[in-house]
Order: sequence, then C-alpha cells, then structure tokens
Amino acid sequence: MLNSPLHNSETIIALATPSGIGAIGVIRLSGPDAISLVNEVFAGKDLSIQPTHTIHFGTIRDGNQILDEVLISLFIGPKSYTRESVVEISTHGSAFIIESIIKLLIRKGARPANPGEFTLRAFLNGQLDLSQAEAVADLIASNSQASHQVAMQQMRGGFSSELQYLRDQLINFASMIELELDFGEEDVEFANREDLKALIYQINRILHRLIQSFEQGNVMKNGVPVVIAGKPNVGKSTLLNALLNEERAIVSEIAGTTRDTVEDEMIIGGLRFRFIDTAGIRDTVDIIEAKGVERTHEKIKQAKLIIYLVDPEQNVEEIKTQITYLIELGIPFLTVVNKNDLVSAEFEAGLSVVSCQLSGEELLGDELSVVSSQLSDLIPQTSFLIPHASNPIIFISAKNKIGIEELKSSILEKVNLHKINTDDVLISNIRHLEALQKTEESLNRVLLNIDNPITSDFLASDIKQALYFLGEITGQVTTDDLLETIFSKFCIGK
Amino acid sequence: MLNSPLHNSETIIALATPSGIGAIGVIRLSGPDAISLVNEVFAGKDLSIQPTHTIHFGTIRDGNQILDEVLISLFIGPKSYTRESVVEISTHGSAFIIESIIKLLIRKGARPANPGEFTLRAFLNGQLDLSQAEAVADLIASNSQASHQVAMQQMRGGFSSELQYLRDQLINFASMIELELDFGEEDVEFANREDLKALIYQINRILHRLIQSFEQGNVMKNGVPVVIAGKPNVGKSTLLNALLNEERAIVSEIAGTTRDTVEDEMIIGGLRFRFIDTAGIRDTVDIIEAKGVERTHEKIKQAKLIIYLVDPEQNVEEIKTQITYLIELGIPFLTVVNKNDLVSAEFEAGLSVVSCQLSGEELLGDELSVVSSQLSDLIPQTSFLIPHASNPIIFISAKNKIGIEELKSSILEKVNLHKINTDDVLISNIRHLEALQKTEESLNRVLLNIDNPITSDFLASDIKQALYFLGEITGQVTTDDLLETIFSKFCIGK
Repeated sequence: MLNSPLHNSETIIALATPSGIGAIGVIRLSGPDAISLVNEVFAGKDLSIQPTHTIHFGTIRDGNQILDEVLISLFIGPKSYTRESVVEISTHGSAFIIESIIKLLIRKGARPANPGEFTLRAFLNGQLDLSQAEAVADLIASNSQASHQVAMQQMRGGFSSELQYLRDQLINFASMIELELDFGEEDVEFANREDLKALIYQINRILHRLIQSFEQGNVMKNGVPVVIAGKPNVGKSTLLNALLNEERAIVSEIAGTTRDTVEDEMIIGGLRFRFIDTAGIRDTVDIIEAKGVERTHEKIKQAKLIIYLVDPEQNVEEIKTQITYLIELGIPFLTVVNKNDLVSAEFEAGLSVVSCQLSGEELLGDELSVVSSQLSDLIPQTSFLIPHASNPIIFISAKNKIGIEELKSSILEKVNLHKINTDDVLISNIRHLEALQKTEESLNRVLLNIDNPITSDFLASDIKQALYFLGEITGQVTTDDLLETIFSKFCIGK
Repeated sequence: MLNSPLHNSETIIALATPSGIGAIGVIRLSGPDAISLVNEVFAGKDLSIQPTHTIHFGTIRDGNQILDEVLISLFIGPKSYTRESVVEISTHGSAFIIESIIKLLIRKGARPANPGEFTLRAFLNGQLDLSQAEAVADLIASNSQASHQVAMQQMRGGFSSELQYLRDQLINFASMIELELDFGEEDVEFANREDLKALIYQINRILHRLIQSFEQGNVMKNGVPVVIAGKPNVGKSTLLNALLNEERAIVSEIAGTTRDTVEDEMIIGGLRFRFIDTAGIRDTVDIIEAKGVERTHEKIKQAKLIIYLVDPEQNVEEIKTQITYLIELGIPFLTVVNKNDLVSAEFEAGLSVVSCQLSGEELLGDELSVVSSQLSDLIPQTSFLIPHASNPIIFISAKNKIGIEELKSSILEKVNLHKINTDDVLISNIRHLEALQKTEESLNRVLLNIDNPITSDFLASDIKQALYFLGEITGQVTTDDLLETIFSKFCIGK
C-alpha cells in the first residue's frame, strides 16, 4: 500500500465549502508542507511555531497585493482529519478571492486535490477504516433523518467493530488449521471442529442479520420507492400534491437545499419517499391485470409500496379483481378511496363484501405475520417489508386534503420502520452486501467440508476467502482500483 | 444608538457558507450566549473554559441522537469579528445536518440572524466603520481583480482614514466658530479666516479627487459597459464569442463560480467588461445617424466604450459618416474592420482617406489630451475616460480569431486603467458619492460666506452640515433606516 500511487506525500489543496455566494469560504490543505506553504503567503504570526488547533488572523498576500483578510486554522499531524498537517483558510466568500488564493498556493507548490483525497488519506493513514470512509460520503449526501442515521452509525464504526470481532475469531481458527497443514502427515487437530462449527454458526447468524438489514438500510439511505396506481382521473397527481405540499414546506425551510431536487420526493416521519414516475404506468393495476407491458411491470416491481387509489364511482368487482392481483404481486399496498364525498352507500357496502370475500387472503396474511414474528425472534428484521394483507381501506379527499394525515400514518405503518431498533447496525452499501454474501458462501463451504478429513485443504482456503471478503469491507484487503472507484464518488475538498 | 432596535443582545445564528453540497458547512453564532448554547449540545470538552481562538473536536447531540461530528472554533469577545463571543461550528456539508443543528440551537434560544447582522454588530461595536462594513459586502461580491481591489482597499480603511483626517480638521474649526457665536457681541475671531479658507481649499481638492474617482471606482466595481455596434451580419456575435471563448475559460477554472452568470461578460486585464445587449441596437450606428429610437440611444449613452465593427464590403463614405457621429457622441470608440481577408486595396485606400479627412477631429482629440494631461497634474484622475479621437483602425477576423489579442490591448488602452496608480483611494459607492458631493456643496457655501461677518451664523451651520455628510459615510452619523437599507443587501451569515 505504501508504494501505491494513491499514497504520496504531496500537499493537496481544495475548496472545502460549496461554491456560490456565501459569507465565507474555507480552503483546505493537507500534507507535509501545508503549514509552511501557507506561512509563505501569510502576513500575521509565524504559523510554523503555533500550537495545533489554534486560529490566527492575518492577510494572504501575493507579493504586495492583499488577496484577503483571513482566519487560519492549524491542525498539526497526526491530530487532524488526515493525520497529516492540515491548514484551513477561512476567506470572504468571493469566488474571485478563493480562486486567487488557491492559484497562489498551487504556484507555491500545492497540488489540486482529487475527489475524496482528504478522506482517502485519512483511510490510508489509519484514521478511518474503509466502510467509515464510505460513510463520510453518505453522510454528506444524507437528506433525511433515516439516511443520516444509517451513515452516522456507519461512520462512527458500529459496523466496523462488529466485523472486526468476526474477523478476529476466524483468524484464530485459520492459523490453527494452517498449522495442521504444516503437520500434514501426523493427523493432528489443533482446531476443534465442533468449536469451529459453533463459531461459523454464530458468524453466519450475524452475517445473515447484516445481509437482511440491507433492505432496510438501503431504504433508509435511498428512500422508499412508491407507486401511486389507479385508473386515469382517479386523482393521483392531486394526491401527490396534497402529500408534497405539506411536507415540502418542511424540507425546504433552508433555502436552496432541496427545492431544486425534490421533484416527486417527500419526507414522512424522517424517511424519504420517492414517487416513481407514474406517467408511463397510468393504468398500473389494469396493466398488471392484463399482464401487459414488461417495462411498466419492472417499474412496479421496484416499488416497496403501492398506493392503490380508487374512485367511488368505479365498479366494485373491478376493484376486487385488482386487489386480488396486488395481493398476488406480493408488494405491500394500501387501498385508498379518493373523492370521499362521492362515496355511495351502495359502493361502501360493495367494498365491505369485497373485504369479506378477500378475508381468506387476509387470513393468509395473518398467518404470514405470525410466522414472520416467530422468525423475527430468531433472526431479527428478517422481513421488514412483508406484505400485510390485512389492508384497511382508507377514505380520503386529495382535493380537500381530508384523510391525508391518516394516510401518512398508514404509509409509515406499512413500511414498518417504527418497529426497528434504531441502534441496530444496518448496512446500506451494495459493495458491503456483496462482500458479506461472498463471506457467507465461503463459510457455508467450510461447513460442507468440515467433517471430511480429505477436504481439510479446502477448509483452510475457504476460511481465508471468508477473511478476504470481510477484509474488503473495512479495507484491510484492498486494491488501488477499488479505492479509486470508491473515492472518485466523493466531492472535491472532502 | 444603544437604544436602537438594531442594537440587541440576542445570540444570533446562521449558515455562513453557501448552501449546496460541499465537504463542510460552517454555522456561525454571535452573542453573549454563543458559547454556552453550543456547550449545551456539544459532547467533548467543556467549551466554557477553553481559551479564545482554539478548535475543539466533538459531537453535537440532540438528546441521545448524534447529529454530527464537528469542529468548534471559539472566539471570545472582544477578540472576534463582531467583538461579541462568536462560535463557528464546522459540520459535514449535508443540508440535513446543517438544518438539524441550526434548528436545535434555535430551540435552545438562538435567533436566526438577519442579512448582514454579524457585520452590523461589528459596526455597532466599533470593529469597522460604516464604509468598511459596506466594503465587506462588496468584497464578497467581487468577481474581478479590479472590483476586488476597490473593495479590499475600502475594507482596510484607506478611504476612512482619509475622511477622518478631513473631519478632524473641520471639527477643530467648527468648535472655534461656535465659540465665537457664544461671545456673540464681542466681535472676537477665534477661527482665523485665512487658515479656514486654506483648509477648505485643501479639503475641496481631496473631495474633488474622491468624487472624480467614482467613475473609475464604479467601473472597477461594476465593470465597463461596452456596446458592439455595426450593421447586421458584420460579425458582432462572432466577435463577442471570440472574445468570450478565450476569457471564459480563465474565468471558469473554478467550477460553478461564474459559468452561470457570465453571459455577456468577460474579464480582460483584471477588469470586467459587460456587453450591453445589442439585440435591440443591431444597427446602432445607423440609428444614431437617424437620431432614432430614444431607448436605444439611452443604452448607448450608458456605454463607456463602443466597438464599431465594420465590414470590408461596406461603403467607405457610410463609415466616415458613422465615425463622425461617434466622435460627436463623445463616447470612446474603436473602429474595427472584421473579415480582414476580404479587405480590398480599394477599401483600404478609402479608409486611409477617411482617416485623413477626420484628422481635424483627431487634432481636436490630441488637443483635448494635452489639456487633460495638464489638468491631471493638478487634479490626478480627473478624466480617466476622455474619448481619444486618435483612433487607430484595427483589422481582425472574428471567425479565424486573428487580431483578437491586439483588440484586447486596444480595449484596455481605451479605458486607460493601466495609467491609474492602484494605491490611490477610490470610491465606488453611490451613497458615498452623494455624501461627498453634499459635503462639497456645504463647504462651497462656507467659502461664499466666509468674508461676510453678517453670515457667520451660516458659517457654523454650513460647517456642521459638511461634518454631518462626512460622518454619514463612515457612520459617525447614522439612522436605523440607513443601516437597515445598507445591511439588508448583505447575505445571511455575514
């Protein structure tokens, strides 16, 4: 790793704050010459003799020209983010000033930082493991309480310490089995096979929980994809607006943060909901019924929730058919009757009948719930989005904003997040998921071969593979390619 | 001032960095409770016992929930920007995190800052005078070397100290003349009239220079308005693009800083040039000739420079007529022949003849230059944009980018900025210009009355008026309305 081109001793520089007009901008340098380079252009105190974690007022000068009055923050390595010497220059927030100062320091010998290069250095210098470094980018991108929580937990190392524990246990066995191989002919057994099995069962339970947590972690990080389905003119857009109008106000309290990006997204109960474009799937449920258009079908299959919106003037038998299809589809759904003021006694009675007729399905649903709750005792969070067939029917008026709060509660209830213990470690990164799955596969091969003396060679190599995949997550095992892929997704300056 | 509603002891909070995605964001608090409020939600060291200008790592917590790992910078008043206690919280650059932390601290008792309120407090607490405070906003908005230079000089107080000197001198005389009034009947003269005259002459010279410097300061701050005039299809847009393409690359080296706003602007030699929309004035020169459309005429009159672009296939007599009009107009212009590869010997000869025929005008121009340079010796910078009639004709090809560099040099030569001593104090603020002009008027009335014993009452009141107007610039004299007007133009967080 030390000879990697990623590991160099150049002093890097970048703007750490967003570009645009603001009161201040912060330019960050890291590397062995960070302090001396800034000292060259700084008029004020001699920065080279100041203690770490101190702030100094003065001017940055290019020859005789004063570029700005600034505050200099000093972090002397290893007491810094990168464990190198770090200087932060707090300037007036003018693009011209920031550009001039960065250019000046590049002329003096600094190099423009690559995306994520500060955090890469923090990783290479042992400040963070790889999954923590990845969490830094997730944290910056976090835009809801849920995504923030997942990233914060990962950055603070909850996930890492859990993996470290598994890895330490396995390394112990791996070395004993290696030792057996050295004694090859003598048929000794340093590694107790029953202990190893017990350990692997234990590890597999943890792996299984982590793998299962991906669905939830991913939803918390990336939001819940929702389809609003129903016949044309049933009020889908009006419903979306009714939901958005209220929530958007909260989201956009800080100007410019989300107003541009929240198109069809909203936050309910700290969780982000993404509405899948229903322009192409106007007749979603009808199309499913007709087993039509594959692409539309694919879109619906991405949904974690379907809001099935009906009109009180719709034919009740038609509604029954469609609900039946939704149950078959296996995606959680909510049946929502819009235009509640138009509901006739006849329609309501019809809907009750449908509800009774579908009670067989509901029973199935309840049975599923029982099974799932038993499973949950063994393996928590195994199935956080099991479709609940027990669907109360919700009456709303999207236009008059009646029943919207109730609908929101039902949506939250449906995705079941409130039942999750928020202190649990969750994974939200597909790279981690894949590495965990590969670890599990390797360990399953170990279990397969464990009682067969002929295959003890495979035993050692399978354990090593498991160790390799675990190490990939936290970065004990890594390649430049992998690092470049990960850090290129960071913003410059982090 | 202490009883002004603007002067309060609330602790204010705002995001000081631009909103948007970046590595970090900086939240700033100022006021008596800044440190204790942050201390309440900070887990790490006890901030209340740390020295000023130090940085502390820890977490911000809302109850049990960790909002972020942050760096806290402490500035204990009066050693801060506002002279109050100031805390800066450096967070990860997520809008969600920033919003959460600001909301938390508002819940704890901070108040969202108004635009410019930090700088307003710096002014109210005597850290900056009013013209310096105004320069802070100019500095943040500065987008070229020239605008940066004017703002920096003003912020660092060059202008203020010059005004302070004048004011101190005048105050001296004002008090002596007041004394004379007290002795009313006795006909004493404490203030020597000849000394007072000499002082006022001296002050008027300085005022005059400052007032004259506005044209240059304004151009340096706001850019040089330029019209590219000429017949349709002569290549005006191509020329603009040729100029922009080269310069825009330099301007936008830092992504996102200027790309969106530079529409028809560019920087040449550190100075910003704004191209006035020529869509409405396509036939500019023709229209002037026809004394046509008033609005177009108005637009042209705003220009500090006209690039008069001609086609080598144009009629030479027509060109002569138009150049004559441009000379009459009194705005500096450059005659530029486009499509240089199409220039015929006949056209070139014709143009030479025109040049000779207009030499009478050129002589007038030269005479003007001589007069102006004599004036300059007495009053420097009196006329930095005198039209130079000595117009060399420049041959270019906008399409093939030939002669563009030469044209740029001529443009710079034309606005004469390179002849300006950059250490001179310049004013760039119309509020200052008006106050200086009113000061000058008051002093001229003093001169008018000085030798008339009957009007010595007016003398005192005119001197006081002059003092009042000077004080308005630096803020020794001010009203809440004025302050609100000035600071409402600031960004929030500054």
